[in-house]
Order: sequence, then C-alpha cells, then structure tokens
Amino acid sequence: MSEFSKRVSVMANEVKNLKVLTESLVSPDIISFAGGAPAKEAYPFEIIGDIAKEVFKPDARGFGSVVYGTTMGVVALREAVRDILLKPRGLDVDIDNIMITAGGIQPINMLCQLFINPGDTILVETPTFVHTSMIYKMFQANLVPCEMDDDGLVIADVEAKIKKYHPKMIYTVPTFQNPTGVTLAQDRRKQLAELGSRYDIIILEDDPYREIRYSGEELIPIKAFDQTGNTIFAGSFSKIFSPGSRLGFMVASDEFMDKLCNIKLGTDTCTNTMTQTIAGEFFKQGHYPQHLESLKNLYRSRRDAMVKALDAYFPEGTKHTYPDGGYYVWVELPKELDTGKLAPEVAEKLNVCYGDGSIFFSEGNPEGAGSNCMRMNFSGQPEEVITENLKKLGNFFKEKLEQGGTSC
Amino acid sequence: MSEFSKRVSVMANEVKNLKVLTESLVSPDIISFAGGAPAKEAYPFEIIGDIAKEVFKPDARGFGSVVYGTTMGVVALREAVRDILLKPRGLDVDIDNIMITAGGIQPINMLCQLFINPGDTILVETPTFVHTSMIYKMFQANLVPCEMDDDGLVIADVEAKIKKYHPKMIYTVPTFQNPTGVTLAQDRRKQLAELGSRYDIIILEDDPYREIRYSGEELIPIKAFDQTGNTIFAGSFSKIFSPGSRLGFMVASDEFMDKLCNIKLGTDTCTNTMTQTIAGEFFKQGHYPQHLESLKNLYRSRRDAMVKALDAYFPEGTKHTYPDGGYYVWVELPKELDTGKLAPEVAEKLNVCYGDGSIFFSEGNPEGAGSNCMRMNFSGQPEEVITENLKKLGNFFKEKLEQGGTSC
Repeated sequence: MSEFSKRVSVMANEVKNLKVLTESLVSPDIISFAGGAPAKEAYPFEIIGDIAKEVFKPDARGFGSVVYGTTMGVVALREAVRDILLKPRGLDVDIDNIMITAGGIQPINMLCQLFINPGDTILVETPTFVHTSMIYKMFQANLVPCEMDDDGLVIADVEAKIKKYHPKMIYTVPTFQNPTGVTLAQDRRKQLAELGSRYDIIILEDDPYREIRYSGEELIPIKAFDQTGNTIFAGSFSKIFSPGSRLGFMVASDEFMDKLCNIKLGTDTCTNTMTQTIAGEFFKQGHYPQHLESLKNLYRSRRDAMVKALDAYFPEGTKHTYPDGGYYVWVELPKELDTGKLAPEVAEKLNVCYGDGSIFFSEGNPEGAGSNCMRMNFSGQPEEVITENLKKLGNFFKEKLEQGGTSC
Repeated sequence: MSEFSKRVSVMANEVKNLKVLTESLVSPDIISFAGGAPAKEAYPFEIIGDIAKEVFKPDARGFGSVVYGTTMGVVALREAVRDILLKPRGLDVDIDNIMITAGGIQPINMLCQLFINPGDTILVETPTFVHTSMIYKMFQANLVPCEMDDDGLVIADVEAKIKKYHPKMIYTVPTFQNPTGVTLAQDRRKQLAELGSRYDIIILEDDPYREIRYSGEELIPIKAFDQTGNTIFAGSFSKIFSPGSRLGFMVASDEFMDKLCNIKLGTDTCTNTMTQTIAGEFFKQGHYPQHLESLKNLYRSRRDAMVKALDAYFPEGTKHTYPDGGYYVWVELPKELDTGKLAPEVAEKLNVCYGDGSIFFSEGNPEGAGSNCMRMNFSGQPEEVITENLKKLGNFFKEKLEQGGTSC
C-alpha cells in the first residue's frame, strides 16, 4: 500500500497520548474529569436559535452568511474580537491584523505551516498541552521543555534554552495554562515579548481561557508588549460561545498576515460564514457580558468544589494548583502512585476518568515524568458530582498507598 | 524578521494565479464570469432558518450541535452522504469510511499531509484547477501535466507518465472538470482505478460538481472500480447546499481513515457541528431532491444561454466545450488573443472579468500555454446578463482581432 509521508510516522506517540483525552469525551457512561468541554448549562441555545432564524434570509446579511467568506473572516466578528475581546484587555489592534480561524487549534497548525521546517526546535512549557505537542511533531519539530513555577514559565530557563537550542518558536498558554491552571505573571509577559524580539523568535501566545477568570486580577497579554511583531496571539470562541461553532482567531503583524491568508486558502479556503455570522450577531446584539458573567459564576463554584474536595479527601502529601480561571486543576499525588497505571482500575471500579499526568510531558523530559500527576477538569461536572467522585477517588488513592502504592 | 518555512516560499506563483480568481469574488461592482460560487437564487434560506431554530435547543440533538464533534463527523450527515449522495450514484460504502471535512478543499490538503513528502510528483490534468495546484506547491510537490481530450484524461499518456515520473498521486476532477467542464468517460474511470492499483499510486477523485448534471447520462465514480483502496473520493456540499457551511467529505479505506483522523485532529480538531447538524437535518427531512431539481433547472438555462451567446457573438475560430453539468465552459479564442493581457482593458471598458486561461496550466507546460483561453462561469449570472455581456465581450474580441490581436 502507498507509503505515508514522514510527518505521519513521527507523530504516533503524541497521537496515542491525545487519544487518552479525546476518547473520554465520547464515552457517555463514564464520569470524566479528563476532557475539556464547556458545561452543558453554558450554551446560549435560545439566543443562537433566534439569531439563526433571523439571519438566514434572502437579504444582504443572509447572503453573506451562506456564501464563501473572505479569507480573513466576517468583519462583524473581527470587530467584536477587536472591541470586546482585545481592546478592554489591553491589546489594541486593527481588524486587518485579526483573522478568524476554524477554532483555536487551527492557528497553531497554520503558524507551524508558516514557520516550521522539519528539524526546527520549539520551546514548550513543562507540562504542556498534549494536543499542540502532537501538531508540533506532525511538522517534525523537536520539542525542548522549559521550567515552570507558580508564576508560569521561568524566564531565565527560557533564555538559557534559547541560547543552547536556537529555537524557531516558543509556545505558551499564559493564562490558566493547560494542563496546570497556572498563570504567567505580568512582568514575565513583558520579558517574554522582549526575548522574542531580541532573539528574533516567534512567541506563540495561545490564550483560549483568558475570558473565564473567577478570581485575581486580569493581566495584559504578552502581545501587548511586543514591539517587533514577533509575538502572535491566538484566541478561541470554544470556551465562551460554542466549540461546535469551530471559531477562533489570531492576531499577527501585516507581514505575517499576508502569508497566513495564503496558508488559509490552501487549508480550507475560509472559515465557515454561517457560524461566524451567528457569533458576530451574538456579540453585536450585546448578549456577551451577561453570558460571560453566568459562565464565570457557574465555573467558579465548580472550581471551588474541586479544590475543597482535593483538600478534604486526597492522601496526605498531595499538592494541587489553585487556578484563577480556566478549566483545570493540576494534582501531584505522592510519588508511590502512578495515575496512568491506575487509570483502568479507576475506570472499572469507580466509573471515573482523569487526564494521566505523564501525557502532558513532552519529549526531552526524563522517563516517567508526571506519572504521579493528573489533570482534573472541573468545568464539565456539577458540584455534587465533583464532591462525590473526588471523595471516592481520594479514598481509592489512600487505599492504594496503604497497600504500598501502584502495583507493577 | 523570522524566516518563513520552505513551503511558503515555493507557492508564490500559484498564489498569484489563485488571487486572479478569488479577488473577483469580492468585487461587487464588476460582472464576474471568473469565480465559482452558487447563484444567489440557489440557497434554501427559509429551510435553513427553520431547521436552525428547531435544532438549537437544550435537548440531545441541540447539545450535539454545539459541542465538539467526533473527528469523523456527525453521524446523520455521514448517513446522508452514504444513502443519498453515494449509493444511488453507484458507490456503496460504510459510514466508517466517510469523513466530513471543512469544505471540499480540506480533503486535498489532508491527503497531501498524509502522502506527500517534499519532491514527490503529482500528475495533474491539463488544464487543472489552480487552487489545488497551489496546495500541491505548498507541500513542495512537483506537478506533471497529463493530456486531456473531450473524454477527459488520456489514459495512455497517464500510464506513460507514471512510468517516467513515478508519481505519488494522480489528481483528477472527473465530472464537469474545473476549469474545462469536460467529463471523464466511463471506461477511462475503470482504467484509471486499475492504474492506481497496478502501480500503487493514490488516485484523488475530486468530484464536487457530480450532483449538478443538466444533460447526458450519469457515470459511476472511479472509486467504485477501486479494488485496492488506492482511490480516494472527495466531495463537497458547497455546490448543493452552501459554501458558507464549509462542509465536504472524503471516502477512504480503513487504513487511510485511521491516519486521516489523526491529521484532522492536528488540523482543526473536528468539523463544525453546528452546520453539520443543520445540513444533516436538511437531508433527513427530505428537502434535497426538490432543491437539487431547482438548482439543475436554474443552471441548465444559464449554461444554455452561455453556449448560445458564445456561438452567436464570439469571433470565428473560437472553440468551446459543452459541459453536461457543473459551473464552467472552457473557451479557446483565436491564437492572436491573449486573455490575461486583455483582462485589465476588459474590466475597465466592459466592467466584466473572466478566468484567464493561462493560470490553469501548471508547471511543466510550455510557456504561454492557455494564453488564448478563458474559463467562463455560467452559474453565477442570470441569462440576460450572460447574453448581454457575452455579446459585448465577443464584439470586443472581434475588434481586437481586426486590429491584429493583442497589443504587446
């Protein structure tokens, strides 16, 4: 049978890791803390239905919603990004520098198309998002992990690794990071933008969780400190509107945007105009502030329930992050517990699943890194389900520890 | 500034060619025969609006329409592809071999991701679709043009070029080809599938126009003759539902589909579920047969008007195809006329544009090939507009000929 391209063969391990998460999303019978989808209560169904009925008519707006769109995307939605999602957050850009994409993953893929040759190096966080690692391997990049602490990427380590590995790109999820929930401190954001400029490296600021903050003060994007165009900002409507609409966006300099338009044409021509038009109207009609407020209230309670249950029920020696927003808490169990090895037993006995910690450690980490860790999603389950199941899970881990840890 | 990847630099010429077409789509003031979008009258607005209002509710179907979808796509839409678009046309496949994609261009990109390494050869038709040529160059493939006659690709030439160039893939638009409107004869379809199997080459059967046939007998897809899985079929909803929905599909063997799922995950996670759900309902509720019939009646009259006007008003020595379906007539003017060079004058004096013939001739063709040709889209303009403007255009070309042809 016809031979596959090189890019297909090098991504096998990352694909396996990603499937640990994606397969949990489509098992309706298991209580999943593994995936990362909005809560069922979080969708503005009635508003979407009303807007759709209003929009799909044989008038100018209706035609605009069913025909091919421009490569850059529907103007009304790019204006909403500029005026509602970016300017109030400290990033003031022109709509000519905003492209609407098919969800928040497409910008990652397109930026690899623009910059990455086989063998190029990308610096990533430790731990890092498994889905993007898979894309980087698809482009035959080498991944080099950088240190993180409670304030995100450690800048001194990033600079040391720039000097050692001469990377093409640095990938960061600066706000409520996936998988840890940690946020990059304000001063480090400025320093990272400056490193990008000084060493002429692309900083890919992947910021899909920024809007859903439950506590703490809002921080200015890395891109706002970028003087040279080296930082590219990627955002998403998946967390604040609907992942099924497949809408995201990226902000880049004129020079990059011109090339990104060509890449977009060669990838899928343009982003779907039907959902762009619906989302554009959603913002234009002013539904967003109230919707966002209700999202935050919903998820804040769930985060609190999860943190409380971890503190109450998990074994002594367990550490966890306290995220100010986003979807995830990162949990570090005592060293004797291997979350990946225990996952099948947890699924069978407790009917529960989580994100095995080790899958978030890219190549370049020591063997077994993160094996006692887990990514726990709190957005997808009601408080009582979180409390009840984390109690069971905590007791399960305690029992395992009494038996001497993970059996091999 | 950061260096672009190699793939970006090699596609410049094809990008320039493609922009000749795409830019005509967004100029509202010019009468365009250049692009290829459905007629404004061809969209089922009211039905789409009603379905949307019905679907976006907090019930099982509503949730399915706003969340992340499976990588393969919404089951109801894959069933519609199987039962309505493929089985009655002679291709009987399982839904596990049908993936829904973001429009009809994404399958081309994804198959390049799956098979094409830099330097691989792809055999293409002469002339061929400029948008796909751009994608092939993005993947750093070499293009080798094959001969066509009134029955499509000349099989003996394809086989000779297989032996000479050892291609990885053969790209064909077998039904109402873009740009010529020519259809590959039934016996050649079988022969092409057999060549793919015998030489272990991928046959990419790109068939977005198949449904809109105005005359002649329906032909069985190449994929129906494929015994080895070497043929991959790509289809689109852009011509029969809405390009703004960004929906297409591809049909591939199990072995390929598994890898294509990984590629889809790394490209845009999944296709938008909102428009998949609306389109799925459109088929399920039985709207398609009547909609298709009205599309065919609309476009048949426009084709007839264009062919009649070409015969009546164009200079002696003009040749053109007579397409049994699709969007385009291919016109060959007397050698003295250069359509690319005349295009600015035509736009300025007549307020009309067309697809310059030369942009559809890939690398490997002699310099200046197709310069006396043009691709004329008939689907986008009402009959009276076609008649009136082709009269003007024909007279313009006659005058030019009297003056000795294109001035240099």
